[in-house]
Amino acid sequence: MMKSYRKELWFNVPGRRGFVNITSQVQACIQESGIKEGLVLVNAMHITASIFINDDEHGLHQDYEEWPEKLAPHEPVSQYRHNRTGEDNADAHLKRQVMGREITAAITDGRLDFGPWEQIFYGEFDGNRRKRVLVKIIGE
Amino acid sequence: MMKSYRKELWFNVPGRRGFVNITSQVQACIQESGIKEGLVLVNAMHITASIFINDDEHGLHQDYEEWPEKLAPHEPVSQYRHNRTGEDNADAHLKRQVMGREITAAITDGRLDFGPWEQIFYGEFDGNRRKRVLVKIIGE
Amino acid sequence: MMKSYRKELWFNVPGRRGFVNITSQVQACIQESGIKEGLVLVNAMHITASIFINDDEHGLHQDYEEWPEKLAPHEPVSQYRHNRTGEDNADAHLKRQVMGREITAAITDGRLDFGPWEQIFYGEFDGNRRKRVLVKIIGE
Repeated sequence: MMKSYRKELWFNVPGRRGFVNITSQVQACIQESGIKEGLVLVNAMHITASIFINDDEHGLHQDYEEWPEKLAPHEPVSQYRHNRTGEDNADAHLKRQVMGREITAAITDGRLDFGPWEQIFYGEFDGNRRKRVLVKIIGE
Repeated sequence: MMKSYRKELWFNVPGRRGFVNITSQVQACIQESGIKEGLVLVNAMHITASIFINDDEHGLHQDYEEWPEKLAPHEPVSQYRHNRTGEDNADAHLKRQVMGREITAAITDGRLDFGPWEQIFYGEFDGNRRKRVLVKIIGE
Repeated sequence: MMKSYRKELWFNVPGRRGFVNITSQVQACIQESGIKEGLVLVNAMHITASIFINDDEHGLHQDYEEWPEKLAPHEPVSQYRHNRTGEDNADAHLKRQVMGREITAAITDGRLDFGPWEQIFYGEFDGNRRKRVLVKIIGE
């Protein structure tokens, strides 16, 4: 019997960019779902934010703040066509492509089936407002 | 009872690069499948094309055309080893890594479970020929 | 009746960076699982390695070695905050974001449902040690 589960998580990151470790919230969803074997999809529902898996190390998060800024600088905002609509967040749309919209992870024995350093992060690239993340689980 | 569904979508983008909004085609597949709760995988079956989720805004698409070209320029074609095989599309293989091969999305109540601005795009980086996209759905 | 399957693959890539074609190993997992219709998730369990789908062409792999090195150079190691912890692999954490942590692929009729050139690769960006890849399959 296949089961499915759905939950929205809400975030409001102060400042333009920031990272939030959401691993324990995703694990809590898995427990609530009662699903022991399956897949969990975690995706940003906004197109200037990211879900990714990496290390929970403060210096690395500074690198994840500075490095995408080298690949797609926020300034000058006029360098992007999208910003001619009156937006100033075109860079956030590009950064999120590098960092990724979503992760899919395995659930084994009712737990995230992760390597020792894997942690799930919400990555914000255009913050200062409430945004949602979708957790969808299927399995049994 | 788990159900599964499979469909190929075909595209022929004129010019080297371009983006096609395929959200309604994917939604039509979900309806055809009869699956109410599950996951849909949408992936390029070719390795110089991309499936990604972002905003359906014309200026942003110009940015998605110009920005990967900065990260991995088409010219000079001789800068890439892959092009020594006689190809000229090495840059397209690199651009597709930045933009991504596939998306996995949630299906809830028989519909794509999306945030307000999320749209699915076929991204072409080596066009002027017919290419396929796979839609695979599992759920119930 | 939903079935699930789990297997770890181990790799020890000599040198800092390298790529291994793991398509036949993933196909062998699918056969072992007995699952005919479903999804297979293949993910690096380490955060400086990647799973991606592209072409099995030697020149392209050299490009995949050189191009991420342009986007996130290994040297000077002092340019990354993460390396102040005593590590020298911050660049590997960044490169893996460009190349991706995981792939999800469709299983149809008991086989990887792939386009003609699609192959699955393990991408190592901080090698010379044993690392794991997770293969998780759900379906029926």
